[in-house]
Amino acid sequence: MNNCFGCNTCKSADKPLEAFIASLPLETSHHRVESQRTKCGFGLQGVCCRLCSNGPCRITPDAPRGICGANADTIVTRNFLRAVAAGSGCYIHVVENTALNLKNTARAKGPIKGEKALERLCQLFDISGSSLYEKAEKAADAVISDLYKPEYVQMELVEKLAYKPRFEKWKELGILPGGAKSEVFRGVVKCSTNLNSDPVDMLVDCLRLGISTGLYGLVLTNLLNDVLLGEPELRFAPVGLRVINPDYINIMITGHQHSMFTDLQERLIQPEAVAKAKAVGAKGFKLVGCTCVGQDLQLRGSHYTEIFDGHAGNNYTSEAILATGAIDAVLSEFNCTLPGIEPICEELKIKQICLDSVAKKANAELMEFPFTERAHQGELIIDKIVEAYAARRGALNLDFSQANAEWKPLIDALMGAYKSIHKDVPLNLLPDHGNDNTLTGVSEVSLKAFLGGKWKPLIDLIAAGEIKGLAGVVGCSNLTAGGHDVLSVELTKELIAKDILVLTAGCSSGGIENCGLMTPEAAQMAGPKLRAVCEKLGIPPVLNFGPCLAIGRLEIVASEMAEELGVDLPQLPLVLSAAQWLEEQALADGAYGLALGLPLHLGLPPFITGSKVAVKVLTEDMKQLTGGQLIINSDAKESAELLEKIILEKRSALNI
Amino acid sequence: MNNCFGCNTCKSADKPLEAFIASLPLETSHHRVESQRTKCGFGLQGVCCRLCSNGPCRITPDAPRGICGANADTIVTRNFLRAVAAGSGCYIHVVENTALNLKNTARAKGPIKGEKALERLCQLFDISGSSLYEKAEKAADAVISDLYKPEYVQMELVEKLAYKPRFEKWKELGILPGGAKSEVFRGVVKCSTNLNSDPVDMLVDCLRLGISTGLYGLVLTNLLNDVLLGEPELRFAPVGLRVINPDYINIMITGHQHSMFTDLQERLIQPEAVAKAKAVGAKGFKLVGCTCVGQDLQLRGSHYTEIFDGHAGNNYTSEAILATGAIDAVLSEFNCTLPGIEPICEELKIKQICLDSVAKKANAELMEFPFTERAHQGELIIDKIVEAYAARRGALNLDFSQANAEWKPLIDALMGAYKSIHKDVPLNLLPDHGNDNTLTGVSEVSLKAFLGGKWKPLIDLIAAGEIKGLAGVVGCSNLTAGGHDVLSVELTKELIAKDILVLTAGCSSGGIENCGLMTPEAAQMAGPKLRAVCEKLGIPPVLNFGPCLAIGRLEIVASEMAEELGVDLPQLPLVLSAAQWLEEQALADGAYGLALGLPLHLGLPPFITGSKVAVKVLTEDMKQLTGGQLIINSDAKESAELLEKIILEKRSALNI
Repeated sequence: MNNCFGCNTCKSADKPLEAFIASLPLETSHHRVESQRTKCGFGLQGVCCRLCSNGPCRITPDAPRGICGANADTIVTRNFLRAVAAGSGCYIHVVENTALNLKNTARAKGPIKGEKALERLCQLFDISGSSLYEKAEKAADAVISDLYKPEYVQMELVEKLAYKPRFEKWKELGILPGGAKSEVFRGVVKCSTNLNSDPVDMLVDCLRLGISTGLYGLVLTNLLNDVLLGEPELRFAPVGLRVINPDYINIMITGHQHSMFTDLQERLIQPEAVAKAKAVGAKGFKLVGCTCVGQDLQLRGSHYTEIFDGHAGNNYTSEAILATGAIDAVLSEFNCTLPGIEPICEELKIKQICLDSVAKKANAELMEFPFTERAHQGELIIDKIVEAYAARRGALNLDFSQANAEWKPLIDALMGAYKSIHKDVPLNLLPDHGNDNTLTGVSEVSLKAFLGGKWKPLIDLIAAGEIKGLAGVVGCSNLTAGGHDVLSVELTKELIAKDILVLTAGCSSGGIENCGLMTPEAAQMAGPKLRAVCEKLGIPPVLNFGPCLAIGRLEIVASEMAEELGVDLPQLPLVLSAAQWLEEQALADGAYGLALGLPLHLGLPPFITGSKVAVKVLTEDMKQLTGGQLIINSDAKESAELLEKIILEKRSALNI
Repeated sequence: MNNCFGCNTCKSADKPLEAFIASLPLETSHHRVESQRTKCGFGLQGVCCRLCSNGPCRITPDAPRGICGANADTIVTRNFLRAVAAGSGCYIHVVENTALNLKNTARAKGPIKGEKALERLCQLFDISGSSLYEKAEKAADAVISDLYKPEYVQMELVEKLAYKPRFEKWKELGILPGGAKSEVFRGVVKCSTNLNSDPVDMLVDCLRLGISTGLYGLVLTNLLNDVLLGEPELRFAPVGLRVINPDYINIMITGHQHSMFTDLQERLIQPEAVAKAKAVGAKGFKLVGCTCVGQDLQLRGSHYTEIFDGHAGNNYTSEAILATGAIDAVLSEFNCTLPGIEPICEELKIKQICLDSVAKKANAELMEFPFTERAHQGELIIDKIVEAYAARRGALNLDFSQANAEWKPLIDALMGAYKSIHKDVPLNLLPDHGNDNTLTGVSEVSLKAFLGGKWKPLIDLIAAGEIKGLAGVVGCSNLTAGGHDVLSVELTKELIAKDILVLTAGCSSGGIENCGLMTPEAAQMAGPKLRAVCEKLGIPPVLNFGPCLAIGRLEIVASEMAEELGVDLPQLPLVLSAAQWLEEQALADGAYGLALGLPLHLGLPPFITGSKVAVKVLTEDMKQLTGGQLIINSDAKESAELLEKIILEKRSALNI
């Protein structure tokens, strides 16, 4: 590691990636874990309040209340509610834009790739219409109308979307959500200073936010995207840095609003666009997947073989993807777009364009993408990217020739790759990074179809003990739960070794797939029973549902299985783990999991340990409330044992 | 101070109050300033980020970026935008409920006390109708409809409400707000982790939020309340703890949603209610004003002489008001309801009832007050308060007889007061607290009427130099800018001594009035020219517009004066100071002030000093952007000099 940038990088479950990052002449998040090693204990426990000018106040044994009188329980739950509300807001922003894109597409009689998906949606919503477009517009309007209801008017689609026993439970608990945007608004107001001080009341609000987040932000975003973009289809695909082909103008995409790219995707493969690329020496354009929008494209990759190069990695792989030097532009539209990419783009002259002002990066160009101006904006974006490509692929030589001697070997390798003219030879910097046969395209529809159109085969395998249970390993990737993807990957290995089938969704998927656990060969790492099942079916022991949004797909799988069994969700031998949750959005997802009545494991506590009430409500009382429970443990082995124990208890209660 | 609770209390500008609090056998916020003395430097500078599980990250010279790559500018402005968005949300919640109350009242053909105010509103909104009720409902609907617009649809009333040159400036800057609730929503999403990282973009959003906060949360809340509750009328009234009469069942009210009390106010003076009070030994009910809802009732006090006992004090006086022992219940509906009142209410058996779930206090009973159930809920609340009164006034004797010997003198005094049977003799614990002749009822309408129906007399006084300029000393009270109300009161004294007429709105008013600066006698503390004006007109040198919401009234005064002069707001010799800003709401108000193009002084920095960009944009670049500027200074003398200098520059530019 002679090229190391001067300090240690954190561990990664992905060893080739870890070595690559450690060798970089550029600073990444992995480097900064060390400089941010000293953590504030007050912040970690959630007992720091900086809502007002009397603060910051911090709770200690000698100072059990802030100046205003707020105690640890109030401060912790206020902070927590604000985080959950903000996280919910992020997802609701995504579903709102997705519904608007569907509505606008329908009105413009644009392409509807998922006709079957639209039919299912219309059936769910009780919508009829004389044309595809009329139905699509009505479906979009139904969603938008719900999102804009006041908090005191319940959303109408909740009852249609929710699993019936859950709907009844939520009704009984009084947590059926009003308009999703107003719920976020209320949450933010409620946790403001000198307003609510009741920890239980605020935690109950988190459940309400969890329901609106889950049913709208997650479930509906998927279903609307299925209509616009085409449904996932099972297939094997390459993943990791190997997917990047330096012969093309490579555009890394980040965010969560896949439907924003629909027009641009088509435009980039038109002869006019390809001609522009060829004029500057490239073969054409490729989109390189990063973060959840990459996972979503990968999921639907069968519809986008020409433009989509594959999924390169998750949020904390994004800096490494750029550092290969083979990326020419970043198109971002939402989180998880790290600010850490900014200096790297600056250094490597990578053009940054943001499509949504909420996600404007400091040194990026904001080019909003209103539906009516998509043609004009699309052409403009293409021209800017072509221009940047021409400038940077020429300029890099000059710049790098002036570089520090230590950087030489890596730069030579990068430049060698750039100059490669061999057709379809992928960038050879990291020949062993990622793999070529990750199973993707898994959805509630494609999986059921694979099982013969019913869940019974899976249920039978579980009942027979061939599969002990199901675990959703979902959510983000972070750098602090053992390192980059370390806990997620280790936990997944432990779970499959215990014959527990793992379903993934979110940036966790990106790490787990790059480590090879979604290839059929990974069956060897499973326990003997699960291994036999996988080998018989030719599938991996970890099934990738794609982006974090697809947590909504897992919920559909669970609900359909529960329905077939005639039980409620908490009775299923099913556990969730957001082992490496990162963002506030993950906390909103987590609140959904708890509202569904599922056990939810987190590798790191969500800044709540300073409140006895919050810890008790979330880890214990929740069982009586919704059936759910929070489990916090940062050790992979222990966590797997805890989750297995719960699965065994649920099995036992079901007499299987 | 033999009764001191064991540690120092902070200073107060209000010396009798300071002495009273120091003598209490109960802990208050004033006591906790000492135990929370050690402040976190990262928090104070705004360079602590705890948005994700990799954190908390803190910026230092050795760690200039958080793990994700966010630098100090991004972290500070994200935190700041989140605070402004939350603060805006609080005000928008208030205006939404106020508009709903007007709408429901109109539909139920309930009392409309401010017919002239309704006419003005209809004229402003271009609304016509065949009845008062039809017009009131249309006006309320116009407001509600704007609040619920998406962020990408501009609100329609902005152009009707805003001063024309300001509207044009905001249009030019592209900061005309979309739907106010969606603007809050967008703000919260934008400052989430790995989304926006552009400090200038986020600060510009704060201006947009400032406009929606100011025009809707402030201006419109006042105008809607004027319709429902009657307009302010000039009069002299008592203020301070002296207003409490222990012969009555005393209900302390806190919050900002005055229109929630309309029905209850009427109900409490009905013979049936009074009979219930008499049955337990009281003469009837009285509302004791605290925080802004008290200021608002005081402002409109001429309409509520029978039920409203007067304004006792601001947010950080609330614990002292309760500690007199003469309060029997707290009815709260919003901030600024300190959690610190909870243990005091517990100790003194004071019933706590919350009318709005966003403000549910930990040990209070939540009794939401939907319009259709106001009769039932009102009766229930009265019964609960009567029951609590009977229990506590009996029980206190027993409890206190067991008390610690040190508490004896104070308890004897309290009990003496309770047992007083002399008609209309106020509680004599603090005979010198507050005063009997504070000028109240000042509004943009009542002041103009006082001036003969036009602003010319005031403009002439300013032009002639008899009044050097105007200063709005607005916003909250805090305990850390020199102590309770210390900076606000000292600054006000400095300003009037410089012949600057001070207009107040917010909890600052509560402190300034209790210190006697709003009595005609305070003219003696003014500079010779202002003193002469005040003595001639029989007015104090500080005019109290009431609650923080009335910052909106100040803006109307300023706009009407600017219109008469044919200039834009930044040209007026007018400055603002939220010297002791406390809550996030004050930051949203402040953003409105900056959008209006006014100089805005704060005594404490709003957690932004860690960002060079934020400091530069707010304190310098803003002058070019909107004409406004932020000034941060915690010294009263220096601050007054800075503000005077600006006033002199503005005078000079106007050639006066």
